Amino acid sequence: MDKDYRTDKENKISITVIRRLPKYYRYLGDLLDKGINRISSQELSKMTGFTASQIRQDLNNFGGFGQQGYGYNVEELHGELGKILGLDSVYNAVIVGAGNLGQAIANYKGFEDAGFKVLSLFDKNPKLIGLRIRDIEIRDVDTMVDFIKENDVEIGIITSPRESAQELAETYIEAGVKGIWNFAPTDLDLPDDMIVENVRLNESLFILSYFLKEKYNR
Amino acid sequence: MDKDYRTDKENKISITVIRRLPKYYRYLGDLLDKGINRISSQELSKMTGFTASQIRQDLNNFGGFGQQGYGYNVEELHGELGKILGLDSVYNAVIVGAGNLGQAIANYKGFEDAGFKVLSLFDKNPKLIGLRIRDIEIRDVDTMVDFIKENDVEIGIITSPRESAQELAETYIEAGVKGIWNFAPTDLDLPDDMIVENVRLNESLFILSYFLKEKYNR
Repeated sequence: MDKDYRTDKENKISITVIRRLPKYYRYLGDLLDKGINRISSQELSKMTGFTASQIRQDLNNFGGFGQQGYGYNVEELHGELGKILGLDSVYNAVIVGAGNLGQAIANYKGFEDAGFKVLSLFDKNPKLIGLRIRDIEIRDVDTMVDFIKENDVEIGIITSPRESAQELAETYIEAGVKGIWNFAPTDLDLPDDMIVENVRLNESLFILSYFLKEKYNR
Repeated sequence: MDKDYRTDKENKISITVIRRLPKYYRYLGDLLDKGINRISSQELSKMTGFTASQIRQDLNNFGGFGQQGYGYNVEELHGELGKILGLDSVYNAVIVGAGNLGQAIANYKGFEDAGFKVLSLFDKNPKLIGLRIRDIEIRDVDTMVDFIKENDVEIGIITSPRESAQELAETYIEAGVKGIWNFAPTDLDLPDDMIVENVRLNESLFILSYFLKEKYNR
């Protein structure tokens, strides 16, 4: 079963709703940056493209923040969504696969916003071991399990080639990580209760291709 | 309005359905690899986590491929979905932003599957200009518009920092690209008829964070 379509087990909130939360969070952050501190669901609808009633329904799942006739307090709603998304928690993370993609991810500034801290990269390539990306060292993948246990690492990121992704995911689980962020273009076969978020670049590319085909009939 | 929620203008197929097509395509490819050449919507449902009736409904949007009592011919359906996704067309692409992410994307093998051919990377950093990633040269961004026009480039990929993404997207449009694949964590403000596909790493990270919070109550 594709994890992208799981539902939230306890609250029965559909993954479709949950996947919209980061978008609300982003748009509210933009409003804050512009100094706007109050917004109606109608205005939010214009910004996001969701209907006003969908917005009210979505946010009601988490307690309902708006007030009739006033709308939403932007700062409050932004803060609450941040808490719901767990952005107030801090997690230690490591990356396995220290090629270009791993290095790009290690450099990714969005980590700090999400409360993730990358402690180390791992690779098996002797030419990479010992190098540093910003202040993050690339270590031998053979030392990864010990490092994870000793440093309370909770998140394992996979930027390895497809062929080694399954084995590395199992190594992560054996070492005790709580969640995996997978960039390898493959379906990981893992215990159902493991939290896995896949970044599927090829699916995104296929969608781009679809719209080109549809518009230009190529 | 968020482009992720646009609908297919001519066919009125919702973007939600379209976004499922690459998943069907992937699962059917896996079946082909395993030598399985016939599958029912019930079996496809077990694999994908979509309901059998949703699968039938989705595929009916594109003409309906299954036969009552037989199911789907895997090879045929895989081939048809590939055509619908435009994977039989070939597009020239370039990448602007030749840092780690740009280099990782240039190395990305999934391009060939989607029919995209990366002809060049562009950057303004003199230390990068002239280098080659595989056989792809990094060129001065000032020469990008001419290169695009001379080489029939149809796809522009943005792996630049957030700050320069809007300007680079406008440069792409001025040069005549038909579609943009954007990795910069920002909302591009572009003409409505421009085809843009965003890869939003921070949203993926926020979803991971949400499920960790939800499970471990941190």
